Amino acid sequence: MSLASRNEDVHSLPARESGPCTVQLRSPYLIYFGNVPDAGHAKTGLGLIQWRRENCAGQFRSAGCQVDGGLADMSIADAAASGVGSLVIGVASEGGSIPDAWVGDLAEAARAGLDLVSGMHVRLSDFPEIAAAARASGARLIDVRTPPRKLPVGSGEKRPGRRILTVGTDCAVGKKYTALAIEREMRARGLNADFRATGQTGIMIAGSGIPMDCVVSDFLSGAAELLSPAAPDDHWDVIEGQGALSHPSFAGVSLGLLHGSQPDALVLCHDPLREVLLGTGGASHFPVIPVRDAMEQCVTFARRVNPAARFVGLSINTSMLSDTERQALLDRYERETGLPAVDPIKDGAGLIVDKILSRTGV
Amino acid sequence: MSLASRNEDVHSLPARESGPCTVQLRSPYLIYFGNVPDAGHAKTGLGLIQWRRENCAGQFRSAGCQVDGGLADMSIADAAASGVGSLVIGVASEGGSIPDAWVGDLAEAARAGLDLVSGMHVRLSDFPEIAAAARASGARLIDVRTPPRKLPVGSGEKRPGRRILTVGTDCAVGKKYTALAIEREMRARGLNADFRATGQTGIMIAGSGIPMDCVVSDFLSGAAELLSPAAPDDHWDVIEGQGALSHPSFAGVSLGLLHGSQPDALVLCHDPLREVLLGTGGASHFPVIPVRDAMEQCVTFARRVNPAARFVGLSINTSMLSDTERQALLDRYERETGLPAVDPIKDGAGLIVDKILSRTGV
Repeated sequence: MSLASRNEDVHSLPARESGPCTVQLRSPYLIYFGNVPDAGHAKTGLGLIQWRRENCAGQFRSAGCQVDGGLADMSIADAAASGVGSLVIGVASEGGSIPDAWVGDLAEAARAGLDLVSGMHVRLSDFPEIAAAARASGARLIDVRTPPRKLPVGSGEKRPGRRILTVGTDCAVGKKYTALAIEREMRARGLNADFRATGQTGIMIAGSGIPMDCVVSDFLSGAAELLSPAAPDDHWDVIEGQGALSHPSFAGVSLGLLHGSQPDALVLCHDPLREVLLGTGGASHFPVIPVRDAMEQCVTFARRVNPAARFVGLSINTSMLSDTERQALLDRYERETGLPAVDPIKDGAGLIVDKILSRTGV
Repeated sequence: MSLASRNEDVHSLPARESGPCTVQLRSPYLIYFGNVPDAGHAKTGLGLIQWRRENCAGQFRSAGCQVDGGLADMSIADAAASGVGSLVIGVASEGGSIPDAWVGDLAEAARAGLDLVSGMHVRLSDFPEIAAAARASGARLIDVRTPPRKLPVGSGEKRPGRRILTVGTDCAVGKKYTALAIEREMRARGLNADFRATGQTGIMIAGSGIPMDCVVSDFLSGAAELLSPAAPDDHWDVIEGQGALSHPSFAGVSLGLLHGSQPDALVLCHDPLREVLLGTGGASHFPVIPVRDAMEQCVTFARRVNPAARFVGLSINTSMLSDTERQALLDRYERETGLPAVDPIKDGAGLIVDKILSRTGV
């Protein structure tokens, strides 16, 4: 990308792989860990290294940092000198803000011409020191929670190309991980597959995407249509799901994404030990609905936009189970659904990809 | 309302009947018809007069205006002198913008201290002459398509009070009209009922509300929860539905609204002559789904948040049918569903309110 184009607003950048106005990040990345106290607060950076090691040039750690992502430690000056494109904030803060301790580092990076990439709730441009540094150098300030402007209303018009969508019985049941594992497995087999990101961490990993829960609701399915645009017949989009149709806080996002994605293949993600939906632990707690009911709901709505839609597998979180319990549980899901049930962290997504290919005759 | 509070942002006004941060309009109104060429472009103003005649002080018509709402004609100066609170733009323009011919009138009204209320896509404050006039007088510029700030994420927590939601097999099948007719009928019977508006025309009629399709999708059900807050046990919120669960462009909005509304009673709105969903006339046109399927989908999701949810009637558009056809059709729907089927424009909503009361034992 030329220097001239770097001053453009991120949302008016020319189309690359995905739609004409999704967020697009500039690699390679310097992963910012700052003074993060534990790995739990560094999931974004660690996930980025796990899934896109090839795009990560180094890590920035300041005094007191308790995390090591296994990359070369780099100063801002080192990063700028070696052609790093963006500093990516790889840590979460309490409350989603940017602590004072980070602001100086971020401003220094912007001054050195690195784009800054943030998934925080606050905007980078709300910090005068950072904003001034970016103006001076032409660096872009990219808040991945900010959706593209000028999104279309969904048309429902069928697009060429094939699509897999991960759906779930709740939030935080592995929809992003499962989609990434499927993409990795498909690419390892030489298939033409792209992960399509719909949340801030996914967008950082993919380098592009649309933060679906930040989109104005009239444009939900239109945003999803834009995210996985028309593609060759042998191309697979592997789309990161959001929320759950049965979650009273987020079902609208899930349904808009489902309709706009027009999935050929669905994978249900589920945590068998989760009894109550996340965020609903109060007086009105909501039980997680049975796997079969969740599948029935999703496939009914998916067939509205793609009559060929079908489930191709289950992704089950078995991290808290013994090996014996784990295998018995996966076997039971397989018997009950007739579909492969795997824990992609332990088993990979090979069985699911086998099923996708057998069903679609590729 | 004191002059001091008129300079506050509309979204920070204190709570009145509905939630703490829904749009709140100041009556009485001067309905602006400008130079509108036909009644089709004046639906907003005519609807406001139809449903809230008591809040309408007069109409403003300029040369060439082809519409008469039956109100006293008033100049801006007349309106200001007689205590009018707001000028409401009662006409639609091509493309949703504000034509030059209106700008002078609107600026004059703002200068005279009238709030301006617009449902256009453009913002009133984007017109320098209007913005300057409002700043000088303290008048508020209220774009009803702008949702409140600081909306909450939906909790699913059950609220006291009773709620009716109109749903549909498509867009533009009478969801707003039906809700207003039910509110009118309930009030005529001395019941404690409030129409809750979710679209721009509805908001103008109600004087408050939340433009659901403009809300950021993460907050869809939270906005709907705010719209019909906790209320006494004998209070009825009659909530204007949006879109349709079966509409691939807008289903996300419909589902978020359904979950957040926690309806006790649902009314299905349907146009029996509509074969294809509005806005999907292209290669991928979508058939309108059968009434029974639409009801089944809606009630399944409604029961997730309110196990007592049930349908209480059908609202059928019979405007294009002969009297014989019309009665035969309504009879058929009644037989098939066991529920009253009415065209509220011809029959009113009495039979539906009878059913609501018989079912809930009020």
